[in-house]
Amino acid sequence: MIVHTDYLWFNTKKRQEFIRVTDQVAAIVKASGVADGTVLVSAMHITSGVYVNDWEEGLINDFQVWLEKLAPSGLDYQHHRTGEDNADAHLKRQIMGREVVCAITKGRLDFGPWEQIFYGEFDGHRNKRVLVKVIGE
Amino acid sequence: MIVHTDYLWFNTKKRQEFIRVTDQVAAIVKASGVADGTVLVSAMHITSGVYVNDWEEGLINDFQVWLEKLAPSGLDYQHHRTGEDNADAHLKRQIMGREVVCAITKGRLDFGPWEQIFYGEFDGHRNKRVLVKVIGE
Amino acid sequence: MIVHTDYLWFNTKKRQEFIRVTDQVAAIVKASGVADGTVLVSAMHITSGVYVNDWEEGLINDFQVWLEKLAPSGLDYQHHRTGEDNADAHLKRQIMGREVVCAITKGRLDFGPWEQIFYGEFDGHRNKRVLVKVIGE
Repeated sequence: MIVHTDYLWFNTKKRQEFIRVTDQVAAIVKASGVADGTVLVSAMHITSGVYVNDWEEGLINDFQVWLEKLAPSGLDYQHHRTGEDNADAHLKRQIMGREVVCAITKGRLDFGPWEQIFYGEFDGHRNKRVLVKVIGE
Repeated sequence: MIVHTDYLWFNTKKRQEFIRVTDQVAAIVKASGVADGTVLVSAMHITSGVYVNDWEEGLINDFQVWLEKLAPSGLDYQHHRTGEDNADAHLKRQIMGREVVCAITKGRLDFGPWEQIFYGEFDGHRNKRVLVKVIGE
Repeated sequence: MIVHTDYLWFNTKKRQEFIRVTDQVAAIVKASGVADGTVLVSAMHITSGVYVNDWEEGLINDFQVWLEKLAPSGLDYQHHRTGEDNADAHLKRQIMGREVVCAITKGRLDFGPWEQIFYGEFDGHRNKRVLVKVIGE
């Protein structure tokens, strides 16, 4: 059994930004030596997330418009009484998800034709980490 | 350590359809020989998902009405400028989820009384796959 | 390879209640003896969930207000023709999530500074279980 851990760092220029990380995760999978198993890719901050969906700029824009509609910024959230202004980012991350677990088969991410892993930042401008944990044999 | 992989295929007649797959997953778990571990059940396409919830036709209809309200089809999504017409399917799958990780104890899915695994199709009429990866001992 | 299983029980006084369970999960991780691996924390009932987010009462209230807006109780859901009155709880749990998979490194939950695990109850007043499955070495 092999367990291999690595971390990715992000510091986005925009408050909200979705960044494709499939290649970085694939490289960590390769470095782990795991041929058959799974990889956990998980945001370590609670105003960001990780999801799998399409690598298409129009759809990425659609996601952002949609999330703003479902979980608007600028409302009078109780969380803001602490001095924070990012309650919407906590809500948006619940829609998009904190983590994904992806399969590894024959040493590679066992993905369908359009699956891409994304880091979803909902409250950027600061250092944030994503954990990558490979388990298998 | 045992790692066992299998795939389920779907080609739904309706654009949106939720299909119970608990029995197929349980059969793969049994075939794996894993007595204690987990099973990842994951859509390999980005307009479908996998979720655990109730096997009750009324609720399944409620989910579909609700998803259409939260992520309507037919809007002027940017994704449609590529020629696609299924942006809503990408959004709906984020709500319902891409994958589930289920526990295996004593050789069986370690489920509560009402847990059932479903394949959620949001843009059907074509061949799609779900990956099942069993890990344990 | 170590696989270790435990369960947490809940019986909330309120219909909807979010309960921090990080310490209980950390204790199970410690008891498992796993130094490097993952832990699955999963609701075993379909009107409750498990999620990771902020331990801040204002935000917890914001989540509850927001979920009521996205998935209102008291609507004429088809599920209620079975005699149930909790369709909204099934919907709310899809937003918040059924399970989380958390990393274990050096014998501890490998968490960012603000990550906390919560049990999310959407239809309380009865005994419910959460499964905790630790896998690693």
